[in-house]
Amino acid sequence: MSIRIGIFGYGNLGRGVEAAIRQNPDLELAAVFTRRDPVALKIATPGVPVASADDVSAWTDRIDVMVICGGSATDLPTQTPALASMFNVIDSFDTHAKIPEHFAAVDAAAQASGKVGIISVGWDPGMFSLNRLYASSILVDGRDYTFWGKGVSQGHSDAIRRVKGVRDGKQYTIPVEAALDAVRSGTNPDLTTREKHTRECFVVAEEGADRAKIEEEIKSMPNYFADYDTTVHFITEAELREKHSGIPHGGFVIRTGKTGLSGEHKHVIEYSLKLDSNPEFTASVLVAYARAAYRMAQAGDKGCKTVFDVAPALLSAKSGEELRKTML
Amino acid sequence: MSIRIGIFGYGNLGRGVEAAIRQNPDLELAAVFTRRDPVALKIATPGVPVASADDVSAWTDRIDVMVICGGSATDLPTQTPALASMFNVIDSFDTHAKIPEHFAAVDAAAQASGKVGIISVGWDPGMFSLNRLYASSILVDGRDYTFWGKGVSQGHSDAIRRVKGVRDGKQYTIPVEAALDAVRSGTNPDLTTREKHTRECFVVAEEGADRAKIEEEIKSMPNYFADYDTTVHFITEAELREKHSGIPHGGFVIRTGKTGLSGEHKHVIEYSLKLDSNPEFTASVLVAYARAAYRMAQAGDKGCKTVFDVAPALLSAKSGEELRKTML
Repeated sequence: MSIRIGIFGYGNLGRGVEAAIRQNPDLELAAVFTRRDPVALKIATPGVPVASADDVSAWTDRIDVMVICGGSATDLPTQTPALASMFNVIDSFDTHAKIPEHFAAVDAAAQASGKVGIISVGWDPGMFSLNRLYASSILVDGRDYTFWGKGVSQGHSDAIRRVKGVRDGKQYTIPVEAALDAVRSGTNPDLTTREKHTRECFVVAEEGADRAKIEEEIKSMPNYFADYDTTVHFITEAELREKHSGIPHGGFVIRTGKTGLSGEHKHVIEYSLKLDSNPEFTASVLVAYARAAYRMAQAGDKGCKTVFDVAPALLSAKSGEELRKTML
Repeated sequence: MSIRIGIFGYGNLGRGVEAAIRQNPDLELAAVFTRRDPVALKIATPGVPVASADDVSAWTDRIDVMVICGGSATDLPTQTPALASMFNVIDSFDTHAKIPEHFAAVDAAAQASGKVGIISVGWDPGMFSLNRLYASSILVDGRDYTFWGKGVSQGHSDAIRRVKGVRDGKQYTIPVEAALDAVRSGTNPDLTTREKHTRECFVVAEEGADRAKIEEEIKSMPNYFADYDTTVHFITEAELREKHSGIPHGGFVIRTGKTGLSGEHKHVIEYSLKLDSNPEFTASVLVAYARAAYRMAQAGDKGCKTVFDVAPALLSAKSGEELRKTML
């Protein structure tokens, strides 16, 4: 009687979901769906079918929750509503500004189908959002700050690789220690973009490329680098592969606030993540929320939800009684 | 149309709840209930009635949620079930081992009355419990650790004061930095009680008392001090008042775990609190959950709940739409 999970899209995130399912005995991988040729796709779990994304509607009776592992830019805005019309779904939609729009689209589909869809699940949005919500509900008179890193930003790495003369590159976002300390002190500093994070780039240049020009072009790139103190290191392809092939990430959510009749007492709430693998951690969050989506649907709930709407107990394989006894 | 809150018991925690209500415009202090003479009790909020605990049953139409601010040892086991038969209630019951029993008693009362009771609300149990639950649901293959401090333990301070020859005293629980670092490294160390925390005591001795004997008696006290490295400082009454009259506390919940097909990636989730005032912070958590209790009751829910059962969005004064737009 395990919960049957489908994986829609088999990139880094999909493979992370596959690995996370193995850690949860009450979950079972039912099928992987791909837009590529399913015959050519080898997955890590023996005996589990790989099917074409085009045939997904034939699986409605065999999948309890579909974990959608597409990208936020072009995949999820269409995939999540479409799949929510057939399945309970989870996605990791992370374009913060477009969440209300995505929520509305998924809600319309899921209300009509009677399914549950939980969107924007992961760590930011996701666990970081939850911590912003809990902390601000408790320390009402306060301020919160989010820092990211140290970690690889795919978007910024892609931006580097688009510079002429660059063969390959990786970009790390790094929180500024002094800014973290200022925030923790409770002085509620106003921090500029430049004061919060630095950016460090490791670049493999094409042979004969003008390195000074590459560095200048990266550092002055609007939106991506111009507002930051950016460092550019030129390294060999071998060094990039050896030392920078991982996808680590992490960050901090800190809220400071005051209590008391005249705000005489200060408090600091801090949540932090240090992740060796961004996609595998995100996948682990997705899988816990897949369990919750199944339970909510079983209880008769429907429509679009976010992490804000999910009671924490629904994430755990343990019973309420067990949780109260061992974790409260 | 604010939510009408009653405070039952006016000690440090009750005064903290009173202050926290002022920070939340959608909440209103309706009355304070005391077992002392209500006429003699002056509260900080002008115009709010102080009533006798004995007359509380006359208030069922005028209180939406009762925040019960009694002690866990003797007050809450009887007060919370009794009040849950008349009101939606919140308490901060913190005797971890007796939570299942307390839950059962409050659930029976609240199921019968059709009210909602949320028990064991605060930071541990409370926010720390939530973080243990979230982190263990995500990093299934992992281990978690809770550290407390630096902060004042009332129980241990009381124990010091019971020693013969001691006039007054304060005890600080201090987490051991080396143990925190070992945990963060992901090596899953097995830590003894002595390795996790130290205890520091500030003692005012009676004139002519045998200090060596007091120190020896404190350090060898079973359960409280014998299993720890304990330091005892003798100070004057003036110094105790000047430097140790606060009630700071805090601590850390850290979970480390592995993901990947062969556990090849490590992750660290850390939550920490640094609190100038333990009771005021606890009160701020209670007040956020009072809002949630009201909303759950309005939605037709009933019975005993814990922080595990409360969807995070219910804690915030903001609407779901606002939360998704600003915090997700």
